[in-house]
Amino acid sequence: YYSTTAYPHVAQSSPEKDLRATAADLVVQLSTSLKTKPDVVDFGTVFTDHMLTVEWNANDGWQTPLIRPFGDLSLHPACSALHYAVELFEGLKVYRGDDKRLRLFRPLLNMERMSKSAERACLPAFDQSELLGCIKRLIEIDQDWVPHLGPACLYIRPTLIGTEPSLGVKKPNRALLYVIMCQAGSYFNTKLSLWADPKYTRAWKGGTGDCKMGGNYGGTLFAQLEAGSYGCQQVLWLYGEDHQITEGGTMNIFLHWINEDGDEELATPPLDGTILPGVTRQSILDLARKWDEFKVLERYLTMGQLCSALKQQRLKEMFGSGTACRVCHIGSIVYEEKNLQLPNQDEHSLSSRIATELTDIQVSR
Amino acid sequence: YYSTTAYPHVAQSSPEKDLRATAADLVVQLSTSLKTKPDVVDFGTVFTDHMLTVEWNANDGWQTPLIRPFGDLSLHPACSALHYAVELFEGLKVYRGDDKRLRLFRPLLNMERMSKSAERACLPAFDQSELLGCIKRLIEIDQDWVPHLGPACLYIRPTLIGTEPSLGVKKPNRALLYVIMCQAGSYFNTKLSLWADPKYTRAWKGGTGDCKMGGNYGGTLFAQLEAGSYGCQQVLWLYGEDHQITEGGTMNIFLHWINEDGDEELATPPLDGTILPGVTRQSILDLARKWDEFKVLERYLTMGQLCSALKQQRLKEMFGSGTACRVCHIGSIVYEEKNLQLPNQDEHSLSSRIATELTDIQVSR
Repeated sequence: YYSTTAYPHVAQSSPEKDLRATAADLVVQLSTSLKTKPDVVDFGTVFTDHMLTVEWNANDGWQTPLIRPFGDLSLHPACSALHYAVELFEGLKVYRGDDKRLRLFRPLLNMERMSKSAERACLPAFDQSELLGCIKRLIEIDQDWVPHLGPACLYIRPTLIGTEPSLGVKKPNRALLYVIMCQAGSYFNTKLSLWADPKYTRAWKGGTGDCKMGGNYGGTLFAQLEAGSYGCQQVLWLYGEDHQITEGGTMNIFLHWINEDGDEELATPPLDGTILPGVTRQSILDLARKWDEFKVLERYLTMGQLCSALKQQRLKEMFGSGTACRVCHIGSIVYEEKNLQLPNQDEHSLSSRIATELTDIQVSR
Repeated sequence: YYSTTAYPHVAQSSPEKDLRATAADLVVQLSTSLKTKPDVVDFGTVFTDHMLTVEWNANDGWQTPLIRPFGDLSLHPACSALHYAVELFEGLKVYRGDDKRLRLFRPLLNMERMSKSAERACLPAFDQSELLGCIKRLIEIDQDWVPHLGPACLYIRPTLIGTEPSLGVKKPNRALLYVIMCQAGSYFNTKLSLWADPKYTRAWKGGTGDCKMGGNYGGTLFAQLEAGSYGCQQVLWLYGEDHQITEGGTMNIFLHWINEDGDEELATPPLDGTILPGVTRQSILDLARKWDEFKVLERYLTMGQLCSALKQQRLKEMFGSGTACRVCHIGSIVYEEKNLQLPNQDEHSLSSRIATELTDIQVSR
């Protein structure tokens, strides 16, 4: 059912003229001094030995992909990514299965979303399967970095930045695509506490909230610090006069509840342009629809509806989803000077069931 | 009246503990091969011989400011500016006066706005007068780059980026402040044509539209390309159901008109959080209020009001303002399938008068 991709299979398709660079052209420069692999680390701080870089310019298109020792980038100080956030990224994971094989989880969904982000950011399109081929080669080279134990895995961060060396605000004529990989560790350790205040907005109609562009994130740190001052770990982002629930931190949000009509329902906000189309979000919807045990709906959800459900004991569970955090139970929400305590997670909670099912798929049990 | 600052005066105030680096500490490494200065170039493409860099980390604070030969930055590929747009900038200009002296135009307003952007971006605060002292030293070293003829000048770009080498979305523990300078050239050559469509939004309540953060710009390129497809040079950014006029491209917007009550008025949208508080915008308001010849108002302006004024021949002129473009007459707007032709600019237009007055101040006539 899931399009997990067996590994390693370097793409062998023929060169495409519009790409001017394929996985088959890849040049590899191996590192002469491999790093020691630490046991457990924070998310996103320890990187593997190699990285992938591909340069692009408007005249010549994509250049030869290069795998080289992990190291600093040399960038012009006027580069468009550093001034105007002409930049985007993706996040996906590679898992070591119980059968010892490595598998990427639904990587084509990431490649497709990356193409959409690139279009919105006015950065160059690239061939999705060729990029995936290059990433697979990078994983192969650094395969010892994929953890051997438990649900741990390696996080892969494709990044695309504008490198035009000019201060004009315009579509860049130069870009750099690069891929780095890091130990994933655990992103959130406990049940999450969220802070919901309509005074900050993450994304809005006519903006870029449905793309993984850098500009969606830098503006959120300030609100995250304020959440911390209320003893909360993340922001629950609201939208509009009716305080619609949109996302939590960098996660999509799900409610498992008895809806207003008395029906059991799993609900998440619809992809109306303000919501990031998460791969884990889509996978949860796919799974739940396959189970066909309760209603599965993409619908608007407001804080008023959540508070009513809580009061009438119709809320079963609230959880977030994302590649980094996977499935994450939400324990409480500070909202309008109240600290809402949400139903606890146990082994019968939907988030537990989903987490187990996703892991089984990812490690091929 | 204007706080133009005579130059050069390197700040000599005593070291401050919270800054841990002052203009007096500045280390200078001169370039051994100076570039040839081209005659006329596009805005923001040719940079001077030197740049200023100051590193910061959460443990030790600001490090020694360094002026060094202009060159590439070496950045960790996980750096927070490249993934999450933890970045901001400023733009100001230095002019060579008729008296041959160099003058910065109201630089303290830029330093203050930069501090506000830094707070919003969760980047470290710095001492405004010390930074200005360092910038003045940089200008002194590259002073031959300030044009000797006409209204031309040198554009200065202070930049502050998060350099935390981690993929966690959080307040960075490392940052880099740098300042580069480039030939300003002319930004727009002719009267501007704008394209107004409510389907794209530049900024929104609860966002970062009032700060010069990179994320406000990257998301605008796509709409700018669409404006081009309608034969327009820039986007006129609208907001809300009533199509409020907010900004044009990267400029603040002014209407000079006979308002609904029959009074002559210069109007620009208020600083409600969605509008960048432009230094040129403020200077125009200050000038017009000093003249005291007509009403000067910060007020909401809608496309409906503009269309009515145009129909009733109450519109005298519409123009944009910004450091890069200075004062820029707007000739036409494509809106709701009409191409609105706005009143022409002549020597009696308010934009001409303001441009002359600003130039006189800037070159000390």
